[in-house]
Amino acid sequence: MAVNLTIPPQSDILPISGVQIGIAEAGVRKAGRKDLTVFRLAAGSSVAGVFTRNRFRAAPVQVCEAHLAGGLDIEALVINTGNANAGTGEGGLKAARDTCEALACELGIKPQQVLPFSTGVILEPLPVDRLVAALPAAVAGLAEINWFDAAHSIMTTDTQPKIVSRSIRLGDTPVAITGISKGAGMIRPNMATMLGFLATDAGIAPPLLKDMARAIADQSFNRITVDGDTSTNDSFIIIATGRSGVRVESVADPLYPQLFKALTEAARELAQKIVRDAEGATKFITVQVEQALDAEEALKVAYSVAQSPLVKTAFFASDPNLGRILCAVGYAGIDDLDVSNTRLWLGDVLVASQGERHPAYREEDGQRVMKEPEILVRIALGRGDASETVYTCDFSHEYVSINADYRS
Amino acid sequence: MAVNLTIPPQSDILPISGVQIGIAEAGVRKAGRKDLTVFRLAAGSSVAGVFTRNRFRAAPVQVCEAHLAGGLDIEALVINTGNANAGTGEGGLKAARDTCEALACELGIKPQQVLPFSTGVILEPLPVDRLVAALPAAVAGLAEINWFDAAHSIMTTDTQPKIVSRSIRLGDTPVAITGISKGAGMIRPNMATMLGFLATDAGIAPPLLKDMARAIADQSFNRITVDGDTSTNDSFIIIATGRSGVRVESVADPLYPQLFKALTEAARELAQKIVRDAEGATKFITVQVEQALDAEEALKVAYSVAQSPLVKTAFFASDPNLGRILCAVGYAGIDDLDVSNTRLWLGDVLVASQGERHPAYREEDGQRVMKEPEILVRIALGRGDASETVYTCDFSHEYVSINADYRS
Repeated sequence: MAVNLTIPPQSDILPISGVQIGIAEAGVRKAGRKDLTVFRLAAGSSVAGVFTRNRFRAAPVQVCEAHLAGGLDIEALVINTGNANAGTGEGGLKAARDTCEALACELGIKPQQVLPFSTGVILEPLPVDRLVAALPAAVAGLAEINWFDAAHSIMTTDTQPKIVSRSIRLGDTPVAITGISKGAGMIRPNMATMLGFLATDAGIAPPLLKDMARAIADQSFNRITVDGDTSTNDSFIIIATGRSGVRVESVADPLYPQLFKALTEAARELAQKIVRDAEGATKFITVQVEQALDAEEALKVAYSVAQSPLVKTAFFASDPNLGRILCAVGYAGIDDLDVSNTRLWLGDVLVASQGERHPAYREEDGQRVMKEPEILVRIALGRGDASETVYTCDFSHEYVSINADYRS
Repeated sequence: MAVNLTIPPQSDILPISGVQIGIAEAGVRKAGRKDLTVFRLAAGSSVAGVFTRNRFRAAPVQVCEAHLAGGLDIEALVINTGNANAGTGEGGLKAARDTCEALACELGIKPQQVLPFSTGVILEPLPVDRLVAALPAAVAGLAEINWFDAAHSIMTTDTQPKIVSRSIRLGDTPVAITGISKGAGMIRPNMATMLGFLATDAGIAPPLLKDMARAIADQSFNRITVDGDTSTNDSFIIIATGRSGVRVESVADPLYPQLFKALTEAARELAQKIVRDAEGATKFITVQVEQALDAEEALKVAYSVAQSPLVKTAFFASDPNLGRILCAVGYAGIDDLDVSNTRLWLGDVLVASQGERHPAYREEDGQRVMKEPEILVRIALGRGDASETVYTCDFSHEYVSINADYRS
């Protein structure tokens, strides 16, 4: 029951020159489901990643960080669903490394040139033998046209594949951007069981790409929440193959702003697709906090509202129970908040001002907005100039069903 | 569907000499429900309170704080359900003060000697006229035996009344302790839509009672969470009438430890009753964090686990999906947590050690504990000597139903 999640037709997905994708069935997730995806990147591609800040970082996250820091060019990714390889100790690290080594052997590269990703159940040993056995089939199918199938093969509780693709012109050169993501629960990426992969055929200098990955994550994947649970496996990867012939070296490059904007928009759309397909979601909610002293304060308030079970169940019911929103603003942790300076809008309807219901507010106006599938909650704090936006969804019976039944 | 919530027989409820209670139907909540409660305290009683830290503090909370700080002896409480008088601005303050004034007039005391309490919907004007009109009926019924009825009349989405009563001997003197509480959702008192009233006929010096109220709240009402939403109206009040003839002046008094312990146990039981009757709860869960560096760190981890929707839905399903607990430990915000030193028990079953599943752990052992209605989650961090305990419940379909339907 995804909320306005558009799946572009397969024919609209631009391949990225220098990125080949192969898919196989390793039998890790469930019978008859593709659960193994391999990316093969052309030599010379730049790759940067942003990973979970959960202290129980999954084994593949730890191996990714080590391989990215190792200095060798990254030339392959390997992604499995059905098992997160998290909370698996030394054995899990060995399993992740063994997977990299097996793929490296198939491709004739070094294990340190492979980044591993896992998503699924936590605290279960990764069945590495099954993954390794399926690698040759995935490698045999490597092709640039496989993005759409990859968007399907990385799904877990997702009901829909998440994919974006667009073309921009940088100077005179057409540049393609294509990306996929997965995730529907355990979502509050800080830098979650969220995976995002974004690729372009623009060239981007590696140190610049590293900075861009963080900045882009902070405007996309790091601004979504479904349940407030930051997963052990969240990973977001940007790949720049350079095959278009255009290359950006630094933020001073005149082409940089346009490329940054296009990549950020693509990442934001991928991140929003996760919220649109969130477990049990019936509404897509944008929480925009304005006039904060600083970004940190704006985010505190935005997440406090976006993560309140009471606010989220009221949205599910289309009930303008707006006191719940004010309540969440109040407990966000801003000790010197003067509530008499706050204002709250639901869509274009001014609901509260000066710490109380706005005199002109009518319940039927709130009700009208609450019934929409896309809702903007806007909160002005009257303290400064900072603003931040967080994307979330409502909280339904279906969320409970999915998470009470996930493993069974 | 409360979890092991015992309601003592009415005959076991000890009256507190010096505390009279009257109840009436003001028509604020719904037809045919008692929604107005008045406490009349004997002259010379000590009263202390602990209130919400939400910045949208409800009007009655603000008036309570002002009246407690005003120096006059508190001689009455007035409590309404059906409307929280929160997010109501200056009009709300006036409504709370007008209620105090009307009750003071009935009782022949000063308005500043009255503490007002409201619980219910936020952001709606308090129908003060209806309250005032019902005050004479409540006052006419004042009696020391009305605790049981009061426990009912302060209920909102509560399914059961919450009441404790016990007798202790201080020296040679029998002392009675009786208290009531309400609350089932919007519960993470810091100091919540939670109200708690505890009374004893012991005498306690006012400055001491103030310190005791905070310390007792920190071991009871400030250690429970249902949904993580700290309400605008949380209030916890302790009343010491002194009518037993025993009086405690300071912590140095040899009778102090026993009285403090008895009051704390009564408050903890009242607080736990709120969790046992939490909206949709089917299980009562104790989260105990040990070996933390300090109490703050222990509480961060305990609340992170106790508030995770994924952990709570797993408990609802009786599914030992224990990776979700480790995940919540990992994102609790302890940046230098070494997960290899952490251990996790479910009841008496050691589930994880050294950051991974314990070798001897068997799923059937976890399953056995998960099926119980009372579950202990114990987490050792291996960092220090501090420990803290938080009480919560599971997260069920019923929670969503109740909160999606509350106002309609």
